Amino acid sequence: MATRPTVTDPMATRVDRHPPAVLLTIGDELLVGDRADTNARWLAEGLTAASFRVVEILSVGDDEAEIREALTRADARGSGGVLVVTGGLGPTLDDRTREAVAKHRDLDLEEDPAVLEILTARFLARGYPELPPLNRRIARVPRGARVLPNPVGSAPGLELPPQPGGARVFLLPGVPAEMKAIFSGTVMERLDVHFPDRPAPPVVEIVRTTGIPESRLAQELEACLEGIPGVNLRYRPAVEGVELRFSAVGLAASERLAMALDAVDPVLARWRYGGRESTLEGATLKACRKAGWQLAVAESCTGGMLGARLTSVPGSSDVVLGGVMAYHNRVKTELLGVPDELLSDHGAVSAPVAEAMASGVRRRLGAQVGVSITGVAGPGGGSEHRPVGTVWFGLDRAGADVRSRQAVFPGNRDEIRRRAVQYALQWVRQEALGHGGFRREGGDFGQG
Amino acid sequence: MATRPTVTDPMATRVDRHPPAVLLTIGDELLVGDRADTNARWLAEGLTAASFRVVEILSVGDDEAEIREALTRADARGSGGVLVVTGGLGPTLDDRTREAVAKHRDLDLEEDPAVLEILTARFLARGYPELPPLNRRIARVPRGARVLPNPVGSAPGLELPPQPGGARVFLLPGVPAEMKAIFSGTVMERLDVHFPDRPAPPVVEIVRTTGIPESRLAQELEACLEGIPGVNLRYRPAVEGVELRFSAVGLAASERLAMALDAVDPVLARWRYGGRESTLEGATLKACRKAGWQLAVAESCTGGMLGARLTSVPGSSDVVLGGVMAYHNRVKTELLGVPDELLSDHGAVSAPVAEAMASGVRRRLGAQVGVSITGVAGPGGGSEHRPVGTVWFGLDRAGADVRSRQAVFPGNRDEIRRRAVQYALQWVRQEALGHGGFRREGGDFGQG
Repeated sequence: MATRPTVTDPMATRVDRHPPAVLLTIGDELLVGDRADTNARWLAEGLTAASFRVVEILSVGDDEAEIREALTRADARGSGGVLVVTGGLGPTLDDRTREAVAKHRDLDLEEDPAVLEILTARFLARGYPELPPLNRRIARVPRGARVLPNPVGSAPGLELPPQPGGARVFLLPGVPAEMKAIFSGTVMERLDVHFPDRPAPPVVEIVRTTGIPESRLAQELEACLEGIPGVNLRYRPAVEGVELRFSAVGLAASERLAMALDAVDPVLARWRYGGRESTLEGATLKACRKAGWQLAVAESCTGGMLGARLTSVPGSSDVVLGGVMAYHNRVKTELLGVPDELLSDHGAVSAPVAEAMASGVRRRLGAQVGVSITGVAGPGGGSEHRPVGTVWFGLDRAGADVRSRQAVFPGNRDEIRRRAVQYALQWVRQEALGHGGFRREGGDFGQG
Repeated sequence: MATRPTVTDPMATRVDRHPPAVLLTIGDELLVGDRADTNARWLAEGLTAASFRVVEILSVGDDEAEIREALTRADARGSGGVLVVTGGLGPTLDDRTREAVAKHRDLDLEEDPAVLEILTARFLARGYPELPPLNRRIARVPRGARVLPNPVGSAPGLELPPQPGGARVFLLPGVPAEMKAIFSGTVMERLDVHFPDRPAPPVVEIVRTTGIPESRLAQELEACLEGIPGVNLRYRPAVEGVELRFSAVGLAASERLAMALDAVDPVLARWRYGGRESTLEGATLKACRKAGWQLAVAESCTGGMLGARLTSVPGSSDVVLGGVMAYHNRVKTELLGVPDELLSDHGAVSAPVAEAMASGVRRRLGAQVGVSITGVAGPGGGSEHRPVGTVWFGLDRAGADVRSRQAVFPGNRDEIRRRAVQYALQWVRQEALGHGGFRREGGDFGQG
């Protein structure tokens, strides 16, 4: 991952005013590789955004002695800050976090009447005459701990005040939805109560781009940002595009960030499609809606992926009429009216066929705009003339000339297909916005 | 995750003959939540399969002092076993792992002539007249370390023998492809040299199922497995189905595993579709190929996902002709020939429409089998009569009666659509195999 080394960042400079945070995730399944630790990632992002400095992530299994041993380290590492522990709070006997924490802090476990009442009501509502004995374990709370209500599950979170040389400890369930609900609600409130003086979190702007590789983005953006102090820029490249994270902290952070965004605007205008929660399919639908377009798609090598992406957005039916998955040439001729001669003269992966597919699907479905994809996704089927990764796109708009474009994508079959869908979405979006840029500039979906 | 508590497992019983393994992953991006730690997961799985017992996973940032501090702990925790460190071996100045390890073990860093030669040749081949000075850092090796060649990148891995009370240390680059290549090659060989007496790894069989929830699977399988000693079973539930991992270790492990698989066969026959590398789309295509079928698909609420899944498999074109993405009702009538009355009398999400879609696409494309999906994926569009999650499927086979089935799936829009695709694939596969089971039993894609 590229970063801008010339400017400062709260993480990079390790400013001590950011209280430390340690994450301890518990569960045998992490140690045998059954799943990646997505809780740790989510909490690291949340705590960083809340102006903590995550200094360590530690994972151990469900063994009580090993949890205690890890707690000793983690509690000390988080001294003056927080320790967030996830997992091992469930009802079964291999959930040992409560016991380990109680022993680590030398506290008795006591049944909490309020928790017991909530649990009993919860099970009653689910048709149980009484609380199953095993689930009663969930109501056991280390003496002095604060109970943090769980709005979406059984096991509540718990908070323990720091001991000398230690951290404020939060225990959260390992079920991601429950962990997130308790953290976003009560834990964030408690952090504000106990760490009121931590620095303002960085002002952050996420910009999502597609069609331009990270290396070229970096080169162009760094040039724009010269002379603007204290704005950090990180790049997160993926097959679908590069996400940019601009951030600034401290005095006049918002102003500096705004200045930076203004400076990069001319470069980004052509490639950006939205912010953190944006998807290119969503942005494309929005642009089509604004232009009053209804879309029809014809897909060969992507086999339905473009349609699937577009219809993944709730409410897409006002724009998307549907399409034809013309995988076999027979479907191209019979359902889309692509002339046999075009296929035999030029091959299925060609400008004339892409154009005929786009026009055919537009007319058959009575749409304003038809878009098509036909290519060699591999691993077989490539030739010297048309190597694997070669994809032709067609775009036919009522009242305008049908057009086609070609791209050659790197990667395996899946990546080539994903890049092709991204390219088609971006082309449609640019057309709907009335930008000529895409046509002139094309797009490089190869590296990011 | 449910586990079989009645039987033993190398991890669960913590048999001491399995040498301990500790993972230390290094990189600021892990601590700010930029990415999940997929290297740790992959290594945990690989080391577990190689009969090590992973006892701890630790992640710290790129700070040299913090890496050293973490090394002190991790080296001791892995005493008698291994410590695998990933990340921080690159050429840039914020890659500090080499320096931290050298200081931790009190070793000098020396430029290794053989590494330098390989690096220089590598850069020469890429058109550089000489090795860039920054990249020269990669050739610095702690005295006494063994160099582990990197077949796919610049930075080699390094191996340090254990010091008293410590672990054998392997340093690997953080780039996943490079880490995996060095681990699977040289590191595995070195582990066999230095840990020759570790127990044989468990004999493992992965079985992938779909259409039956974890709870029901567990109930039925546990009953079959009673009386078969020493076979461990773990469940990995996902939206697409439940993956089962049967394992046995020690004396006659293969025989016991075979006995267990025989015992569960009657239950699994209906739901299994393959092993670790299998996909349901792959298994479905295989079954269709064997039956001599060509397929056509008609998708409404899934908008192309079924076609995309089927065509994700290289060489799918001998089975998949294509299909129609009939998102709007107009497409259902015009391209698939669904009568208007059916739509107005029964609604688009109904048995008659599902059947007409399947027949329509089969006939239009000249396929042996047509399959259709039409449903309410939500979040809007539900009613008391047809709640969100209601999906109808149609299946039309040349020379047989067209049939339909209904299911109601839980989850959000994405999960409902994914479950619907899974259901359709499983139905087609069962039909192609000639199983009546699916028709009689239906399938419950709700919980897993």
